[in-house]
Amino acid sequence: MAVVFSKCINSMDRTIESEILRLTEQADMISFAGGLPAEQTFPRDEIIKSCELGMTEGGQKSLQYGIALGYRPLREKIAKRSNKIYKTNLNADNILVTTGSQQALDMICRLFCDSGDTVIVEKPTYLGAVMAYDLTGVNYRDVEMDSEGMRLDKLEEILKSDERVRMIYVVPDFHNPTGATWSLKRRQEFMELVNKYEIPVVEDNPYGELRFRGEHLPALKSMDEKELVLSCGTFSKTFAPGMRVGWIAARKAFIDKMEGLKVSMDLSSSPFVMRLVDAWLENFDYDAHLDIIKALYKKRCDAMLAALDEMMPEGFTYTRPEGGLFCWVTMPKHMDSMEVLKESVKDKVAFIPGQLFFTSSGNNNYFRLNYSYCDEDTIREGVKRLTNVLKRMK
Amino acid sequence: MAVVFSKCINSMDRTIESEILRLTEQADMISFAGGLPAEQTFPRDEIIKSCELGMTEGGQKSLQYGIALGYRPLREKIAKRSNKIYKTNLNADNILVTTGSQQALDMICRLFCDSGDTVIVEKPTYLGAVMAYDLTGVNYRDVEMDSEGMRLDKLEEILKSDERVRMIYVVPDFHNPTGATWSLKRRQEFMELVNKYEIPVVEDNPYGELRFRGEHLPALKSMDEKELVLSCGTFSKTFAPGMRVGWIAARKAFIDKMEGLKVSMDLSSSPFVMRLVDAWLENFDYDAHLDIIKALYKKRCDAMLAALDEMMPEGFTYTRPEGGLFCWVTMPKHMDSMEVLKESVKDKVAFIPGQLFFTSSGNNNYFRLNYSYCDEDTIREGVKRLTNVLKRMK
Repeated sequence: MAVVFSKCINSMDRTIESEILRLTEQADMISFAGGLPAEQTFPRDEIIKSCELGMTEGGQKSLQYGIALGYRPLREKIAKRSNKIYKTNLNADNILVTTGSQQALDMICRLFCDSGDTVIVEKPTYLGAVMAYDLTGVNYRDVEMDSEGMRLDKLEEILKSDERVRMIYVVPDFHNPTGATWSLKRRQEFMELVNKYEIPVVEDNPYGELRFRGEHLPALKSMDEKELVLSCGTFSKTFAPGMRVGWIAARKAFIDKMEGLKVSMDLSSSPFVMRLVDAWLENFDYDAHLDIIKALYKKRCDAMLAALDEMMPEGFTYTRPEGGLFCWVTMPKHMDSMEVLKESVKDKVAFIPGQLFFTSSGNNNYFRLNYSYCDEDTIREGVKRLTNVLKRMK
Repeated sequence: MAVVFSKCINSMDRTIESEILRLTEQADMISFAGGLPAEQTFPRDEIIKSCELGMTEGGQKSLQYGIALGYRPLREKIAKRSNKIYKTNLNADNILVTTGSQQALDMICRLFCDSGDTVIVEKPTYLGAVMAYDLTGVNYRDVEMDSEGMRLDKLEEILKSDERVRMIYVVPDFHNPTGATWSLKRRQEFMELVNKYEIPVVEDNPYGELRFRGEHLPALKSMDEKELVLSCGTFSKTFAPGMRVGWIAARKAFIDKMEGLKVSMDLSSSPFVMRLVDAWLENFDYDAHLDIIKALYKKRCDAMLAALDEMMPEGFTYTRPEGGLFCWVTMPKHMDSMEVLKESVKDKVAFIPGQLFFTSSGNNNYFRLNYSYCDEDTIREGVKRLTNVLKRMK
């Protein structure tokens, strides 16, 4: 005998990611690569206080094993908040707390998919979702996007012809990587199609609260007549990623099945952390905190767009986000973003090459820029270095 | 189309567990059913202080995303502690921090197994491991136990004949459910066989630190010439389960592969919690804390054994644990522990029927008793009620 690894481990190829990491993590690099929230927004002192507050009055209970769905008062707050912002109709029974929304993605795939099943994704789509879904050995069908969202004619073609489709994965608000947001009309038409074909939808919404321009749009979950939508949320971008608190909002029948899954996977997420986050929401002003984050990201996004407007050479286009963390650049067709990255790191500026966000090959002329992490001066300097590289390589 | 669930969800049958939960969770029940640590041992005030200490000097970093393997200073402490107690030879590179050791079990199965592969387990084995492994759709071969541990003749028969064996899962210290501990000799002989067949071993050790009689025995990991052992540990029983901090200790080549798995599953366990646990270990006296827990559990175990010695009718046997949380009762062959439970809950005393811990059918004359959660008077009263039921039903 010898040690044998599973198929998902054997097919796990992180060569490109490792290469990119190696390139971008050099000293003095201006990095637009990661998706990190700005650290000065983390409410350190409030967290210390919330720990203390959470430990009073029955707080000892949160040091014991807890129920798999998560701390109920927190689940109530998550449901209420979603109803207020996204016009959903949820209660605590619709919520399961996960270890960040990354775990939600893995769990939902395990709920619906076996090896060889099909998941429909946007083109491009979020890299982390593909990494989670790869563990189950699924296949992907990617659907072209236009300025309003997913192209429904293309989607329907797949729904009609592929019998192994088990779910559709979308990021309608401030998409990762593109920063784009689906229009209200497209949301409604998409949900008509979903209800017609009765196919589960994963609505991944880590950035929805970070709208710094325009009005919140109703979530797909709010148009969910047949209760097919599973919405994933997280406190990573609105509180602190180090807590690892995310959630799934879905019909109770789905949540009940995932309760068993969660027990088998890790019993529950940390009851201690859930209680701390609940104490923070209870005792501090979430809206005021979000206003600080949004104001900061708006300033940074505006700084990036202003610099791009001023310095970007002709033949390049980019999205103008109304929220979230990312801006997406389209280069002339003949350019390859991995080649551009290799050059740009010499000038000490980094980004994520677009091909990482595609499940099909041959999409090399895109890249993603993050604007949440660097301050405005750094952003301007980074864009200057980057656009110089682009001018050289064009 | 219609909603289709995955095979692992469709085969998830929790009917018996739900039935047992319903029976045992009635009011006024004396419960020997759960596996809960005693809540008075949770160091609430030290935890509040550790949160504060963890947030000083770069503590803000632990609110950001962290590396998948976990906070390095904590991993160093885990490695050192294991080397001291269990004679292993580990460093931080051998450690991956998980969301409790339940997640470790799921991850290790995903590392080695695909649907239809074989996992060898003890007879009986830990229910939670089977629940985790079931997600991957593996088959089980269970191996008879004797007073020293797993029967190696039976083990070798399986290793010789079953080509789909991917790993062996064992709990050599204070077994769940039996409370038994493998002898040193059996550990050595077992590892000889493992090294001969080169088969990965999951050494699940949640209770090893809770030895309240006798001397610590070297872990299987310490006899691991070919680096085939993956040891799972946790702070759930020695600090607080609500933190959900466990770990896997294994050769670096395995840890490297699981790093990718961890990223895909949830990016990392909570950096905030890892830092808090690290600050607690740094600033408070772990050994003194363990002494308090061990003294308490010894008293409670002794109370249970004394009551059983005094009141148990003839024809029943039970283990005499040297640590851990559980005692295992063998009834006369004709008795069925589910039937006994149905009667005993009427007299307001509960336990876990043994059949839950077997991967093969027809093992109905066992049950598990927990002694860590109830105080001594309650234990005595519970044993009195229980033995009365046994006398009636014998």
